[in-house]
Amino acid sequence: MSEPTGNYQFQTAGKIIAGPHAIQRLGHALTGAGQASRALIVASDTMRKRGVTDEIAALLAQRGIASEAIGGVMREPTADHIEQLADRVGKEHFDVYIGIGGGSVLDATKLLSVLRTNRLGVREMIGTELITGEGIPTVLIPTTSGTGSEATPNAIVTLAEEKLKIGIVSRHLLPRLVVLDPVLTLGLPKPITAATGMDAFTHALESYISNKANPISDMLALESIRLISRSIVPAFHNGSSLEDRSAMLLGSMLGGMALAGSGTAAVHAMAYPLGGRFNIPHGAANAMLLPHVMAFNLDRIRDKLEIVAAAMGIAKEPGRPAAAAERVIERIAEWTEELEIPQDLTAYGVQAADIPSLSAAAFNVRRLMDNNPKPVSTGQIEAVYRKLLPREAIK
Amino acid sequence: MSEPTGNYQFQTAGKIIAGPHAIQRLGHALTGAGQASRALIVASDTMRKRGVTDEIAALLAQRGIASEAIGGVMREPTADHIEQLADRVGKEHFDVYIGIGGGSVLDATKLLSVLRTNRLGVREMIGTELITGEGIPTVLIPTTSGTGSEATPNAIVTLAEEKLKIGIVSRHLLPRLVVLDPVLTLGLPKPITAATGMDAFTHALESYISNKANPISDMLALESIRLISRSIVPAFHNGSSLEDRSAMLLGSMLGGMALAGSGTAAVHAMAYPLGGRFNIPHGAANAMLLPHVMAFNLDRIRDKLEIVAAAMGIAKEPGRPAAAAERVIERIAEWTEELEIPQDLTAYGVQAADIPSLSAAAFNVRRLMDNNPKPVSTGQIEAVYRKLLPREAIK
Repeated sequence: MSEPTGNYQFQTAGKIIAGPHAIQRLGHALTGAGQASRALIVASDTMRKRGVTDEIAALLAQRGIASEAIGGVMREPTADHIEQLADRVGKEHFDVYIGIGGGSVLDATKLLSVLRTNRLGVREMIGTELITGEGIPTVLIPTTSGTGSEATPNAIVTLAEEKLKIGIVSRHLLPRLVVLDPVLTLGLPKPITAATGMDAFTHALESYISNKANPISDMLALESIRLISRSIVPAFHNGSSLEDRSAMLLGSMLGGMALAGSGTAAVHAMAYPLGGRFNIPHGAANAMLLPHVMAFNLDRIRDKLEIVAAAMGIAKEPGRPAAAAERVIERIAEWTEELEIPQDLTAYGVQAADIPSLSAAAFNVRRLMDNNPKPVSTGQIEAVYRKLLPREAIK
Repeated sequence: MSEPTGNYQFQTAGKIIAGPHAIQRLGHALTGAGQASRALIVASDTMRKRGVTDEIAALLAQRGIASEAIGGVMREPTADHIEQLADRVGKEHFDVYIGIGGGSVLDATKLLSVLRTNRLGVREMIGTELITGEGIPTVLIPTTSGTGSEATPNAIVTLAEEKLKIGIVSRHLLPRLVVLDPVLTLGLPKPITAATGMDAFTHALESYISNKANPISDMLALESIRLISRSIVPAFHNGSSLEDRSAMLLGSMLGGMALAGSGTAAVHAMAYPLGGRFNIPHGAANAMLLPHVMAFNLDRIRDKLEIVAAAMGIAKEPGRPAAAAERVIERIAEWTEELEIPQDLTAYGVQAADIPSLSAAAFNVRRLMDNNPKPVSTGQIEAVYRKLLPREAIK
C-alpha cells in the first residue's frame, strides 16, 4: 500500500445517491441541490427506447422542472461530433444537464456543459486544466459498469483526422450529482457486460499499480477490485442478478474515483491508438491488453499484486506465497476467456505491419505511460501488441 | 460487509489536499477554487502561538488574498459562544472562512459560515437539514486526528442551560477544501493524541457496525480502522513519527467520511450526556465507553468484528476463528490502558447517583441510538456507565 506520507489529493462528484431505483430519488435530490427549472437530458438511444428518458422527464415534472431530451450521441465521440451536439443544444438556457448512458454519453454531457459556458472549442480543451470556467451543473447516471466517467474529471474524445483518442482533464468536468441505479444495467448485453466490466477492472488495477497511487486511490482501487472480482463472471452469465449488477456498478464508480487520483498507465496508453485508428471499443482494447501488460510489469509489482490477490479472494498457496501475484494474472486471462473477449486484433483489421506505428503512438501517450511502474520501450510495446495477433499473422 | 443492493448516499468535502507541508499549497488551491480576495482565519490558540496563523496569512498574501484572524474558540463550544463569535466577525465581507484547529474550531468555523448567510440562530439550526442556504465557502485544516469534522456535514454544540450536547447536520456545513497536513499534528500532547485517536477509532468502528452502514461507509470505516490500528500506539509513544501522524490524520478523516454516511451509534449517544453535564472531553468519553458498549453489542456484531479483526491485523487463531471478535474488544481495552485513558467517571465528578439521569439522557439520543445494531434499554445503559465507576463508588 502507498504510504500516507506522500503528497496527494482527492476530488470527485459532489454527491452520490445509490441503490435500486435510485433514479426515483432524482427529483428530490435535484430540488435539494438548489433551484432548477429546466433540465437538458442527454440520453443513450437504449435508455430512450426503454422509456427511461420519459420516466425521468415525468419525475422532474413532478418537481416543477421542465426538460428536453436529446440523443444520437455517437459511440466514442469525435471532437467534431461533440461540437455538433453543442450546436443542436444551442443557446437555450438549462439549469442542469442530465447525462444517462454509457461512457460516451457521460463524456459528451460533461463536455456540453463546459462548452456552453466557456469560449473554447473541444480541441482547445485537450490537456489538463485548460478549461477556465465552471460549466452548467451536471447529473450523471451511468448505465454500464465500466467507464467510471461519472466520478472523474476526464472526458475522452476522438480526433478523426489524426486517428487519435485523447483526454480532456478538468475539475470543471466533475458532476454535481451521480445516480447509481443498478436496475438500469440489468439489461446490458453479454458482450458489453464483459468489455465494460474488464474496463472497470483495468481502471482499478492500473490505479493501484500507478506511480501516482496514493493512500486514498489505493483504498478505492482495492475495494473496486474486490467488488468486480466477485461479480464480473456472475453478472456476465446471469445478467439479471441485481446483487452482481449492484457490485459491478459501485466497483466501476470506485475505479473511476481511484484513477482520478492516480491516473491509469500502460494498458490505457496502448488502448488509445487501437481505438483511434481501428475503432476498437475502449473496454475490449483494455481487456485484451490487460493480462499481457501485467505480465510485463510483474517483476516490479509483485508485492502489490499479492495484496490485489487477497482482494480478489485468491488464497495463498502454502509454501508459495509469492505465487499469488502470478495467480492474479492467470485469473485475468481466465476471465477474458470466460467472458469471450477475443484475443485477436486482426478481428478489428489490425495487421502485423501496423504494429510499429501503433507502438510509436502508444509510446507518445506520456501522460499515462509515465505512470507505469516499469518503463516501456517501443520495442516492448510492439512485443505486447504482437501477442494479440494470431501466429499466422505474425509470419 | 454491507451488500450494495441497499439505498445509500455519499457526500463529503469538495476537495482534499494531503501530505506533509500541504498547507504550503493552500494559496494555490484557493486560487484554483475561484476568486477570493479576503479570508477569515479561525484558529486555535495553539496554532496562533506556533505561528501557523501568520504563516497562512503570508501564503495568502502572496496570492493577493488579505486575511484577518480570530481566536478564542472555547473547547466544545456552546451555542451562545458561537453566536458571540459571529458577532465578533460582524458583517464584514470575507470570501472564505479558513478553520485551523481541533474539532471545536472546525465546528465553530462551519457554523460561522452558515450564520453569516442564513437568518437563523444556532438553536434554530439544531437537527437535520434545517439550514436553508449555502454558507461562506470554508477551508478546514484539522490539527488533531480525531474529530473527522473536516469531512462531515455535522457540527456539535453544547446547550449550557440544558446541559446538553447536540448535533447540527446540514450539507451546507461541508467544506469546499480540506488540507490534511500531518506536520501540524507532530506536537500534539500525549493525552490529546490518545483521546482524539480513540475518538477517531470510535467513529470508524461505530460506522462499520451501524444499522445505516453501506458499502461506501464500510470501505471508509475499514480503511480508517486499518490505519488507526497500526499507528495509534506508536503515535502516542513517539509523537514525532511523521508516518504514524500521517496515518492517524488520514484515518481520522476517513472515519469522518464513514460516519457522514452511516451515523454513529450507542457509544456516541452515551458520550454526549457526559460532555453536556460533566464537561468530559468528547474523545475521552468515547474511549472509556467503547470497549464496554462493544462487549454489550458482541452477539449481534460477531461477523462484522471478524472482518474488523483482519483490518486490525489480528491473526485468526487456528481452530478458533470466532475468537477474533473477542480479540477486537480485548485489543481496544488494551489500548485504553496503554494510552493511559482513565476508566473512571468519578475523576470527572460523576457519582453513582447521577447514573439514572445520564442513562435517560443517553436513551433519548434516538438519532444515534437507533443506529445501534442491538437495541439498548435504559437499564442496559446504566450497567455500562457503572462499569466506569470504581467499586467503592457503586456501593
